[in-house]
Amino acid sequence: MKKIEVVQNILEANDAIAAQNQQLLNENEIFAINIMSAPGAGKTSLILQTVAKLKNKLRIGVIEGDVASTLDSEKVRNEVVDVVQITTRNMSESCTLIANMVGHALKRLPLGDIDLLLIENVGNLICPSEFALGEHKRVVISSLPEGDDKPIKYPVIFADADAVVINKLDFLPYVEFDINSFQIALKGLNPRIEIFQVSCKTGAGIEDWRAWLLKELEANKHKSQAKK
Amino acid sequence: MKKIEVVQNILEANDAIAAQNQQLLNENEIFAINIMSAPGAGKTSLILQTVAKLKNKLRIGVIEGDVASTLDSEKVRNEVVDVVQITTRNMSESCTLIANMVGHALKRLPLGDIDLLLIENVGNLICPSEFALGEHKRVVISSLPEGDDKPIKYPVIFADADAVVINKLDFLPYVEFDINSFQIALKGLNPRIEIFQVSCKTGAGIEDWRAWLLKELEANKHKSQAKK
Repeated sequence: MKKIEVVQNILEANDAIAAQNQQLLNENEIFAINIMSAPGAGKTSLILQTVAKLKNKLRIGVIEGDVASTLDSEKVRNEVVDVVQITTRNMSESCTLIANMVGHALKRLPLGDIDLLLIENVGNLICPSEFALGEHKRVVISSLPEGDDKPIKYPVIFADADAVVINKLDFLPYVEFDINSFQIALKGLNPRIEIFQVSCKTGAGIEDWRAWLLKELEANKHKSQAKK
Repeated sequence: MKKIEVVQNILEANDAIAAQNQQLLNENEIFAINIMSAPGAGKTSLILQTVAKLKNKLRIGVIEGDVASTLDSEKVRNEVVDVVQITTRNMSESCTLIANMVGHALKRLPLGDIDLLLIENVGNLICPSEFALGEHKRVVISSLPEGDDKPIKYPVIFADADAVVINKLDFLPYVEFDINSFQIALKGLNPRIEIFQVSCKTGAGIEDWRAWLLKELEANKHKSQAKK
């Protein structure tokens, strides 16, 4: 009983900070997405594709979460308004970004100069599902080589996501991945989930993803303005 | 300070239970390996290949760790002496197997009938690194489609491993993966690490892995007998 209470308290404290983060984002008219996946599914590649497609239209900021190294922020640094690296190499916090880390990162970003904030979470299909960061939308990337059973084996992160990006579509000839049964499993967990099929390598399917992001960004802007 | 102490206590308690598990394994002359990887890297496939190569020589038991579903134990059930499924779908424990879960699983296995115990950990490159289970050897699988930067981005799990299995070697023509720089990064973290290059799909390289497992199992048997 005590253990469950402790966990409950941590999650409630996290949710309170996440709500503050979202308020700060809304005040600055920033639309933020939390990008989650297993290691190597293509979070950085999706960010690079998104930036390439949208940097002439939107001012983009990035928060990079990693256990160790600054490899990913180096890859995006020259393409965006600003990038803040969070390195979580500390056992008790390392398996996900938490709202508090993102709150500190927001203080280091030029919020007035950003329209779209892409938050790359730590590579993990379990821990990030429990921690809101203040984002407006939650996106999970699932890549073909991982296999089509991931929604069944890691249901929580998919059930809570707004969108799933099926990446590495160029691997389709080389893997056994039933896109149809993957989508059925996803819809079973979460009937309203948006699903995109892309290859960040070839650029296939990125246009649909870009269009959805822009639509959601506009919808969020109207919602924020209506509240003022 | 308090937080660090709490984490320290959890890890110490886990280590104590892991030591009990290992003692129980040694009393029953069982050699146990802890198989860790990101989701979809091929833990179950490596287990199936290992069982196929060794089931005529050794009596094999399996412990399957998953957040949800019994997909993996269904795949191995008919091939081994016994399999116990641990389903960790509970936020505070879900991101890794811990020694306590394995201790309970050991009570459900016919220990006198097992020579080799394969423990499939939860798909995660972060949390499992901190938790000993009682295993004799720790193995990490890293698959080509994940990219060759994983030892740099998730160093702890690789630094503590006894062996790394590079899987999905059949993907080499389709991915950018520099096996040489991957191995250099691994050796930098852990000079004594054993590295195997395999394809669980085609069976390539499995013979070396099998030979190493048998050698380590024999070495462990002699060590256990010397202690008696």
